[in-house]
Amino acid sequence: MLHIVILAAGEGRRMNSSRPKVLQPIGGRPMLDHLLDTVQALSPERVHVVVGAGGEQVQAALAGRDCDFVTQAERLGTGHAAQQALPGIDPQARVLVLPGDMPLVRASTLQALLAVEAELALLSFRADDPTGYGRILRDAQGQVQAIREEKDASEAERRVDEVNSGVLVASASRLIDWLGRVRADNAQGEYYLTDCIGLAAGDGARVEALVADDAGELQGANDRAQLAELEAVFQGRARQALMAAGATLAAPDTVQIRGQVGVGRDVFIDANVTLVGAIELGDGVQIGPGCVLEDSQLAAGTCLKPYSVLEGATTTGACTIGPFARLRAGTVLARDVKIGNFVETKKASFAAGAKASHLSYIGDAEVGAEANLGAGTITCNYDGVNKHRTVIGERAFVGSNSALVAPVEVGAEATVGAGTVLTRRAPDGELTVARARQRTVADWKRPTPKTAED
Amino acid sequence: MLHIVILAAGEGRRMNSSRPKVLQPIGGRPMLDHLLDTVQALSPERVHVVVGAGGEQVQAALAGRDCDFVTQAERLGTGHAAQQALPGIDPQARVLVLPGDMPLVRASTLQALLAVEAELALLSFRADDPTGYGRILRDAQGQVQAIREEKDASEAERRVDEVNSGVLVASASRLIDWLGRVRADNAQGEYYLTDCIGLAAGDGARVEALVADDAGELQGANDRAQLAELEAVFQGRARQALMAAGATLAAPDTVQIRGQVGVGRDVFIDANVTLVGAIELGDGVQIGPGCVLEDSQLAAGTCLKPYSVLEGATTTGACTIGPFARLRAGTVLARDVKIGNFVETKKASFAAGAKASHLSYIGDAEVGAEANLGAGTITCNYDGVNKHRTVIGERAFVGSNSALVAPVEVGAEATVGAGTVLTRRAPDGELTVARARQRTVADWKRPTPKTAED
Amino acid sequence: MLHIVILAAGEGRRMNSSRPKVLQPIGGRPMLDHLLDTVQALSPERVHVVVGAGGEQVQAALAGRDCDFVTQAERLGTGHAAQQALPGIDPQARVLVLPGDMPLVRASTLQALLAVEAELALLSFRADDPTGYGRILRDAQGQVQAIREEKDASEAERRVDEVNSGVLVASASRLIDWLGRVRADNAQGEYYLTDCIGLAAGDGARVEALVADDAGELQGANDRAQLAELEAVFQGRARQALMAAGATLAAPDTVQIRGQVGVGRDVFIDANVTLVGAIELGDGVQIGPGCVLEDSQLAAGTCLKPYSVLEGATTTGACTIGPFARLRAGTVLARDVKIGNFVETKKASFAAGAKASHLSYIGDAEVGAEANLGAGTITCNYDGVNKHRTVIGERAFVGSNSALVAPVEVGAEATVGAGTVLTRRAPDGELTVARARQRTVADWKRPTPKTAED
Repeated sequence: MLHIVILAAGEGRRMNSSRPKVLQPIGGRPMLDHLLDTVQALSPERVHVVVGAGGEQVQAALAGRDCDFVTQAERLGTGHAAQQALPGIDPQARVLVLPGDMPLVRASTLQALLAVEAELALLSFRADDPTGYGRILRDAQGQVQAIREEKDASEAERRVDEVNSGVLVASASRLIDWLGRVRADNAQGEYYLTDCIGLAAGDGARVEALVADDAGELQGANDRAQLAELEAVFQGRARQALMAAGATLAAPDTVQIRGQVGVGRDVFIDANVTLVGAIELGDGVQIGPGCVLEDSQLAAGTCLKPYSVLEGATTTGACTIGPFARLRAGTVLARDVKIGNFVETKKASFAAGAKASHLSYIGDAEVGAEANLGAGTITCNYDGVNKHRTVIGERAFVGSNSALVAPVEVGAEATVGAGTVLTRRAPDGELTVARARQRTVADWKRPTPKTAED
Repeated sequence: MLHIVILAAGEGRRMNSSRPKVLQPIGGRPMLDHLLDTVQALSPERVHVVVGAGGEQVQAALAGRDCDFVTQAERLGTGHAAQQALPGIDPQARVLVLPGDMPLVRASTLQALLAVEAELALLSFRADDPTGYGRILRDAQGQVQAIREEKDASEAERRVDEVNSGVLVASASRLIDWLGRVRADNAQGEYYLTDCIGLAAGDGARVEALVADDAGELQGANDRAQLAELEAVFQGRARQALMAAGATLAAPDTVQIRGQVGVGRDVFIDANVTLVGAIELGDGVQIGPGCVLEDSQLAAGTCLKPYSVLEGATTTGACTIGPFARLRAGTVLARDVKIGNFVETKKASFAAGAKASHLSYIGDAEVGAEANLGAGTITCNYDGVNKHRTVIGERAFVGSNSALVAPVEVGAEATVGAGTVLTRRAPDGELTVARARQRTVADWKRPTPKTAED
Repeated sequence: MLHIVILAAGEGRRMNSSRPKVLQPIGGRPMLDHLLDTVQALSPERVHVVVGAGGEQVQAALAGRDCDFVTQAERLGTGHAAQQALPGIDPQARVLVLPGDMPLVRASTLQALLAVEAELALLSFRADDPTGYGRILRDAQGQVQAIREEKDASEAERRVDEVNSGVLVASASRLIDWLGRVRADNAQGEYYLTDCIGLAAGDGARVEALVADDAGELQGANDRAQLAELEAVFQGRARQALMAAGATLAAPDTVQIRGQVGVGRDVFIDANVTLVGAIELGDGVQIGPGCVLEDSQLAAGTCLKPYSVLEGATTTGACTIGPFARLRAGTVLARDVKIGNFVETKKASFAAGAKASHLSYIGDAEVGAEANLGAGTITCNYDGVNKHRTVIGERAFVGSNSALVAPVEVGAEATVGAGTVLTRRAPDGELTVARARQRTVADWKRPTPKTAED
């Protein structure tokens, strides 16, 4: 029976933020959220999150999560924090304690720690620069004796490069015992969780430190520069996964991934693309430079030209989109649809072969197959208080600069003349216009200059 | 007399692609295409490309290339592959054998190899991590004895860090002899080209391995992560060349170059610019952040503001373009032209000083000098089946939101009133409008709310 | 009394530029400009800039700067260059000599040099690759004996990795003496400033070389690749400063900073953002990917969606802007304003809650609180010669595709029908339209195909 205790009470003062540290984002989600995902792989009996100042923010941010929240009212150190969670845990259970700002640790690493035979097992790693970390002190036989915090370490101890990750596992009963004996007689006047190691070693308990292969996954973040480093590692992993799945990334370092991205074969993702939320890209999808996709699904063969922004859009066949297209929620495009530059769509379906190539706003609309919407077509879907629908028939042709005042219909094969403000149905197959007579004004003079600024 | 044999039959299974490996792109072109360019510098008698599965794709992709294609029907190893090409080669000729996925090798490196005096000369390099490579085995005197493939190597042999690049040169007659004696009695059950080295050494032939200075140029790609590494090296070279030619790259690592780019002096290229195809940038051209240029020529002094997308566009004098302008094929701009934001042009010429500053679509059009096209001007060049031209005279002024229904002309110094749908010629120097009378509706009531969503 | 002499006469031939080297930009400003800022922290009596060819360009570029310009008419070396400045300096003064292409040196480093007790003190650093630098020659006791230029160095001397930064300090009187004795009997036939070191040592003067901790800040740039390296260091510093101040940078390496950026807490800056000039970002401001901001101030809570371009814009409350919005100079947005996609504003104020969500140009305008401008609204502010203002009242509703021909007013709570060309005031609270009657044309036939290109 395994319980997880996550220490999430750190303020992260050096973040200079109004947000608790564990809510700082990595890959678009709170650091703590990543860790909660990871520990699920260990099938714990229960996950206990110890929160401190800003605890309500943490609870609110993780409202949907299946975990308990325990409040550490006073900031008395990591040992004190861990202690808050123990009353809710069966003394027979094993307890895995983790810092809340460790978003990159892999489940396999934690599983390896759980497999260590010891009464107290902890994860350590070798640091190029151990400054700031608790040092692992071993005796001549290599047995772990204690962890010494930086501020309490001697010169010699500071030269040790094996350091504490903050992750340890022991039985609840032993932890209760050791934590009860931890004293705050140190440089910071705090109860250190890490003092359990010395106490356990003093008791003659078997203490083991598992040295992690990859120090990177055990890093936390105390300031935003470190947060950016974690983000870079996270992004590196996500980019590698996309490439392994069959996507070519023209410039992997420039692609930002913040969600779950599924890719088919021979997907091409160009530089500076941002992928957010749930994304599915079918075989051979091409994403041009600078596109931003959020919660969108693209059918095989869809081609996004540069700087297309999609939010909740779907293509059901191979389409051509962009450049500078913006497809908002509820946009559904069938095969061979073309959405061109400076076109915005919202709650709009386009049947096969329909086109809106230039400078249009198509909202709350249904566009029939092979219909062609001219440059500057606007669906006037909003009357200031309500939204209304526009329905455009198959093979309809809407002339440029037309305003379709919804609710309104354009019939199948209907033609709407350029510049028309359409307020009633345009009948099938016929030409409908609303246009004033063109006239040339006699004796008109051009205005004369008063100022000449731009 | 030099023949080149390129081994291009590799499937590249780890690419997870429907495309043969040698067609994976670097700098926007197939890997093999780069190699074919490079070997041309050696003035070979003939280039033979050995293709395997997907050979038709390779042949189709390289249709314009002057080379022979030989098919390796069965996948029996590199030795067998090379053998397929030999029947077409004069036994007196020298044969340079190269792997098809080596896009970055320099001609000078190959020339150095050809200059080595030996009966069999090969290119080796020192690998930081030799895993996966064939190791070069030398005797105590440093004489090359054999190449041992990873899967057949002993522990001691695996520690050797001099590895095989896959490039070798020998006479056709000797190769025929050695390849005829190669056996498939190894871990993979394949005929290895590299076994020729051991056979040659056994024959007492002079075998030399030239250790390349730059291991980077000899890398291939077995998966998309390695492909991305090759791309990064390729981009690095292309960026350095631009800087050497006199361009300032604000953030070189963010510029993508996929074609032939000519730059004058003091060209400034900002971050995240993508250059594709044939590009010429005159002295002092400024390219703002995020611009995408394809097959375009810009005269000295042209300034592109952020996020301008050019495809087949030309400026013949210093112009100002963007931000968010899209110039499509056949756009030609003279000096002092201004194309502003959210403006698309296609097959359109703008004479000196003409302007389309905002939200316009100008296609199949000729715009006279100093003409001013107001915001929202649209050339209605398409009637649903045919395209028609619009001609706008010098110093014409087209009011905002005008639709010019082509074929149509706006005369010199003509003024077109805002909101006009112009269907007939606007005479020179006069004001032409098509506009309904403005009226205020008595007793009208605003609609009342039903829903309130966006 | 401290005088500063900056050697800014270098042509920088390898830059391949029409601009003098010291005017090449780092972070958007001339290299020399950065150095002039830095030396101000030393409170010098006077700053003397020695210019050569292109000196007028340098003087013009630094017109507002409080410094003297001295011309080196002949290019006779750095010693000769420094000599040109000395007549204008009190012999009692200390003189700090610096190369003009050292934009990254920190004031603290120069202060440390000034604090060295010596008759001649210079800054050196250890170079990983000393090629091209003057080597610091020390005797067995470590006393500096001379500086040897690369071209005059022996093989043994070339192996020395302590090199000259080009920065030195001495009294004016000693410098006058030493420089008077420098000879041009060297490989380049030039008078080297660095020969002063040997002369001083020969005189028995106390010569000290302070080895700088950070070689990076002493780098100059001889070609554009080196310029790009300086730029990268500069950007790294600027990004770290933003993060320390409380901004999260999703991908720090992709953010370009060229000016003074002030940030509040919990500002989020996404990838590929460019910040130019004077920028202020209030607490919680969010900048989406690819935004370009120049001289703009954003109030707390303002959210910029991707690819928004701001030039001289201000928000006074939390607004939502973009994607693809362009806010030009004189744009002022109050709280809850929404500027949507493909919208351009210029000299326009929007009161609280006003909206222009799609495809609009709003220039020289005042928009009242809660007013709603429909898609395709255009203020016709320009009549070809003069600009005019548009005033829109509170809660006004302007229908789509309307052209407001300025000078014109839309009254409070007025409604303007879609497609209207408004030339006179729309009265408060009423519906005003200018619209032709919609009609369907009898017996009309669609055009038949002649060509079918796009």
